[in-house]
Amino acid sequence: MQTPQWDSLWLNVHLATMSDDASYGECRDGAIAVKDGVIAWLGSQSALPHNHSAKHIYDGKGAWLTPGLIDCHTHIVYGGNRSNEFEDRLNGVSYEEIAKRGGGIVATVTATRAASEAELFTQSLVRVMRLLQEGVTTLECKSGYGLDLATEAKILRVARQLGQELPVRISTTFLGAHAVPPEYAGRADAYIELVCEQMLPALVEEGLVDAVDAFCEKIGFSHAQTERVFQAAKKHGLPVKLHAEQLSDQGGAALTARYQGLSADHLEYLSDEGIAAMAEAGTVAVLLPGAYYFLRETKLPPLAALRAAAVPIAISTDCNPGTSPMTSLLLVMNMACTLFRMTPLEALQGTTRNAAKALGMSDKIGQLAVGMKADFALWDVDRPADLSYAIGANPCSGVVFDGRLLKING
Amino acid sequence: MQTPQWDSLWLNVHLATMSDDASYGECRDGAIAVKDGVIAWLGSQSALPHNHSAKHIYDGKGAWLTPGLIDCHTHIVYGGNRSNEFEDRLNGVSYEEIAKRGGGIVATVTATRAASEAELFTQSLVRVMRLLQEGVTTLECKSGYGLDLATEAKILRVARQLGQELPVRISTTFLGAHAVPPEYAGRADAYIELVCEQMLPALVEEGLVDAVDAFCEKIGFSHAQTERVFQAAKKHGLPVKLHAEQLSDQGGAALTARYQGLSADHLEYLSDEGIAAMAEAGTVAVLLPGAYYFLRETKLPPLAALRAAAVPIAISTDCNPGTSPMTSLLLVMNMACTLFRMTPLEALQGTTRNAAKALGMSDKIGQLAVGMKADFALWDVDRPADLSYAIGANPCSGVVFDGRLLKING
Ligand SMILES: [Zn+2]
Ligand SMILES: [Zn+2]
Repeated sequence: MQTPQWDSLWLNVHLATMSDDASYGECRDGAIAVKDGVIAWLGSQSALPHNHSAKHIYDGKGAWLTPGLIDCHTHIVYGGNRSNEFEDRLNGVSYEEIAKRGGGIVATVTATRAASEAELFTQSLVRVMRLLQEGVTTLECKSGYGLDLATEAKILRVARQLGQELPVRISTTFLGAHAVPPEYAGRADAYIELVCEQMLPALVEEGLVDAVDAFCEKIGFSHAQTERVFQAAKKHGLPVKLHAEQLSDQGGAALTARYQGLSADHLEYLSDEGIAAMAEAGTVAVLLPGAYYFLRETKLPPLAALRAAAVPIAISTDCNPGTSPMTSLLLVMNMACTLFRMTPLEALQGTTRNAAKALGMSDKIGQLAVGMKADFALWDVDRPADLSYAIGANPCSGVVFDGRLLKING
Repeated sequence: MQTPQWDSLWLNVHLATMSDDASYGECRDGAIAVKDGVIAWLGSQSALPHNHSAKHIYDGKGAWLTPGLIDCHTHIVYGGNRSNEFEDRLNGVSYEEIAKRGGGIVATVTATRAASEAELFTQSLVRVMRLLQEGVTTLECKSGYGLDLATEAKILRVARQLGQELPVRISTTFLGAHAVPPEYAGRADAYIELVCEQMLPALVEEGLVDAVDAFCEKIGFSHAQTERVFQAAKKHGLPVKLHAEQLSDQGGAALTARYQGLSADHLEYLSDEGIAAMAEAGTVAVLLPGAYYFLRETKLPPLAALRAAAVPIAISTDCNPGTSPMTSLLLVMNMACTLFRMTPLEALQGTTRNAAKALGMSDKIGQLAVGMKADFALWDVDRPADLSYAIGANPCSGVVFDGRLLKING
């Protein structure tokens, strides 16, 4: 038998492998080995092969070790800041008045268009770093604050750069159909035509698109317009996902399922038909408790029915300046438990194995198993439930990304 | 005219002085000088005296500078961890079953009694450090998880030690009347007798008590029992405060006002009479949005009436393992805005000038003014409202405590 030659070996850790649907996959007093950026061995420390060897051996000092966290729905690349609107609203200024002053999504579109690529990168970097400090190793970034080809391309290029410059996997999503831009006011169909026939092909050509998304809502795009976007995506062989059923039931989740969508997201107003279609298609339900909290929504997503239908549930920050100015995935886990009554296990599944599913990356990330990418986080906690329980704490004591150690003991 | 000889001078900062009731006291392009741990000068940089001099000059690089934050209501010194209960409850275990297993406050009392003073210090230190990283420079610590003399003394000694070992002002509060301990079950009056006649005198003798608090509630202590505690406090010349009107209207706020209390805290069920009495006595309303959030309370504290009566409003983490396991005062500010519809100005007043009032420390801290303690925080934000707007971010880029620089640029 050949001596295993590992690059690194972590001893004295408690593993939460997240490798099955029903448990943390707890392995106390465990060990995990990495070779070429991939998990090469894991299990009980007492079961380590006698003839093992590793270039580097680390002492986890009793930390819990989980898959690196995955934030599977963000609009984190944007220009400007909307704290002024936040303050105006709380000071009693009406939405109408704020819109008249150029506020709302238009403010972000204007600032994002005006920012240079370098400025946009720098502004977004700060937010991404906050996520990474909490053990996030994979991040989805949507476009959607450009609403013209040049700016949508700029956003997605910045997203790709973030993945090149920082220790994080970035999955890009083209969300041209986020809102009708001011210059297309009253001409939504013409804008959708632009999205499908000009923007998408050019962005795909530049290699900027991993998936395609839209906002299907009364105040967004219709079912028919959304389907047109999905058809264009399919023409390019790209997976789809959807902002669906956030404010009303538009049948968006069922439509997404019909196109074998990766995920339907938000879902407060999801119907039983939508759930059945998602279950059948294997579409992930991405719930966004930060937006629910920030908008003081009172209608809960249908957790019991999603569970009963065995639809995989992911959770995410939805980081965006208008409805979820949030850069803590741990806080999302607490909100999922506190506001949605999800369990701490579901919360951790929602930021690991199910978030990986929502990005179509289950074969590489989201669980600790031999052959998976060596992305993991160490936590100075007594048990995995602490990650969801504590509010405003960051017990992340170490991060390994692609097999490389980034941070240890704070 | 004598040359001012300052210890340190901060240039290129935007000041939010919080020195009046109606505004941030914004002073853009400001400067602030420190001598002997006290603010010696502040104002527009262009108005600096021509002959000024300082041993150390710092460039604030355009940061916003506010008073150090004050967390005026915490139970941060405790032993053990209740994430297991949190998880059990979400997994469907009933409160009764959890209580039967020794859970609830009894679990924390048991763990706190069992911990050595050194263990209690180390466990509490981690939580306090999290607050300090966000610019907190003053912190209230309540006892109340001992419920016997030895343990209440241990908790308050640990609180004092935290103030000696860390760069933070600690205000201690004796909360012996937090709950009836198991060994006094059914004998609440006898326990109150112990609190007033034995515990309080011994703790005062040891110099451990800055203020006295109680939990006046159907599930806590009666109005009469609370008044007995207040009378004992007054005998020792100590100020009082109260956990009042959290779950029902017990007339606790009016009682507190009658004893010139520093603050009445929680207040979801506060009556108009309570508000009038607080306004008259100058008692601060301390609101605790973290507990409101964590308990999914739906009854809001009477913000409009408190404002109309000009009752000063403070906000705080209420950091405790059972109902607010929270160590982010910035998140409290966001929750105050999002959940209570307070304005960002009110949120910052609530963690500076009004929190100082709630601790009886208005003469020393809570605003930037000549003669005040040089406790301040620097923030990498565009405007003060960002502190309340962003969720899960920590833009604190510098802290000065008692005139000493603790942290700069992250
Ligand atoms: Zn979104
Ligand atoms: Zn309390």
